[in-house]
Amino acid sequence: MKVISSVKKMQSFSGELRDSGKRIAFVPTMGYFHEGHLQLMKEARKMADSVITSIYVNPTQFGPKEDFSKYPRDFERDHQMAESVGVDVIFYPTDKEMYPAGYQTYVDVEKVTQNLCGLSRPGHFRGVTTVCCKLFNIVKPHVAVFGKKDFQQYVTIRRMVEDLNMDLEIVGVLTIREADGLAMSSRNKYLQKIERPSALTLSKALKLAQKLYAGGERNASVIISKAEKLIAKSPYTLIDYIKICDAETLKDVDTIRRPAVMALAVKVGATRLIDNHVFGEKLEI
Amino acid sequence: MKVISSVKKMQSFSGELRDSGKRIAFVPTMGYFHEGHLQLMKEARKMADSVITSIYVNPTQFGPKEDFSKYPRDFERDHQMAESVGVDVIFYPTDKEMYPAGYQTYVDVEKVTQNLCGLSRPGHFRGVTTVCCKLFNIVKPHVAVFGKKDFQQYVTIRRMVEDLNMDLEIVGVLTIREADGLAMSSRNKYLQKIERPSALTLSKALKLAQKLYAGGERNASVIISKAEKLIAKSPYTLIDYIKICDAETLKDVDTIRRPAVMALAVKVGATRLIDNHVFGEKLEI
Repeated sequence: MKVISSVKKMQSFSGELRDSGKRIAFVPTMGYFHEGHLQLMKEARKMADSVITSIYVNPTQFGPKEDFSKYPRDFERDHQMAESVGVDVIFYPTDKEMYPAGYQTYVDVEKVTQNLCGLSRPGHFRGVTTVCCKLFNIVKPHVAVFGKKDFQQYVTIRRMVEDLNMDLEIVGVLTIREADGLAMSSRNKYLQKIERPSALTLSKALKLAQKLYAGGERNASVIISKAEKLIAKSPYTLIDYIKICDAETLKDVDTIRRPAVMALAVKVGATRLIDNHVFGEKLEI
Repeated sequence: MKVISSVKKMQSFSGELRDSGKRIAFVPTMGYFHEGHLQLMKEARKMADSVITSIYVNPTQFGPKEDFSKYPRDFERDHQMAESVGVDVIFYPTDKEMYPAGYQTYVDVEKVTQNLCGLSRPGHFRGVTTVCCKLFNIVKPHVAVFGKKDFQQYVTIRRMVEDLNMDLEIVGVLTIREADGLAMSSRNKYLQKIERPSALTLSKALKLAQKLYAGGERNASVIISKAEKLIAKSPYTLIDYIKICDAETLKDVDTIRRPAVMALAVKVGATRLIDNHVFGEKLEI
């Protein structure tokens, strides 16, 4: 497996792959891999001749009071894990390489970024779309693979790619969960043992919501209010949002008609967790 | 010569060119060609196997009170002129093709767009960078050719391409002028005959500035004030700005040290004209 840190080298490496007719699948990440990341890489492996993953904790998507500096990092471990699932190249740039002096260009997806995490993390998605736009231009993939755990990110990237006519396919992969239902996330590392049962209320609320939906309930506020109660009664939890939105526009819906997603963000102790479920899709909890 | 209107068709046509090892040069335009456009196409012709030009009057770069609807258009004439200089493909999309329902993504270059025309045309450069980003992704050029008559646009596009790691080269071509010195522009068509002498004050002011510079003058406000007098004494003129800026950052400078550009925007009757000169570069008036 190759590690490339220079933008120019990555670009010419990918350019040569493309010129020789190879298909490239790309998994952009912030590193500190868990089974969810590996699943994305395994999916990527099936779709292409070359699998490239990037490890880059992107400063522009963190707010000034967020966890950029303490975001977990472990390159050696990531390197081994990526190799174990057949990744061909890790793109591992520095901040200076990605945002050199004089940097001043940003990509904004205006509407789908307004609701949900956009409300509590201003500027977050602008950072995500900008870095993904850059990474796509550097890695030149035919297909890029994203986890649906970050559902709003997945919808936003799809929108950017379509709007800016980027010639690549975005594939979303269902959330991978721990045996107890907790959605895999690098931030789970922050959780104290005593907070774990509270962290499980997110997936339990989604399971309850899916059950209500399966039973015929289509009124969003009925479902939300039951989920809210389930989570709020657990200690250490502070609900940021629980919403049901159109799965494409991410606008709040009152009644579930078109494909809809239930999305939630909850602080459990000091750790902000997110999770979601598209009604009718598979939910293995 | 081929005319392609569909984004998907253009993308696959260019993709095939690239796959077969052909080099693509691209000249994005809003049509209504003059000698300046043809010069860009001739330069493009020298650099590549295939020359693609786009004709698209991009609505997102016009302000609500600007001349979008009356901007001159003449596709048949453009078609003939492009053919005469060896263009291979005209990409000629509709608004619906470029900005379909639900469109919501924009590219912002934050700093170099603030001064000069950015002051009087809010949102203009955001429209320009967005449409160029889209066009680059659709046409997939190895090199794109821009006229330096729109100097701020040229600087902004270079900045976007560098910041977003777009793998293409931006080439700037010196302004082509009428015999009397007027910089070629599709908007010159709006000028009344009686306004022509006033329109010439822009290039005359640049010539005066270059002469002062050649004589050793480095104080920006001295040069600006003499240029101002020259233009203001002519009838029908209304100065929007006359500025001397760093040629890379486009920030105003007091003293000319690094490469600097004198840029001006003047309304002559109902027509807003712009022109510029980089001190020390060739100025054939």
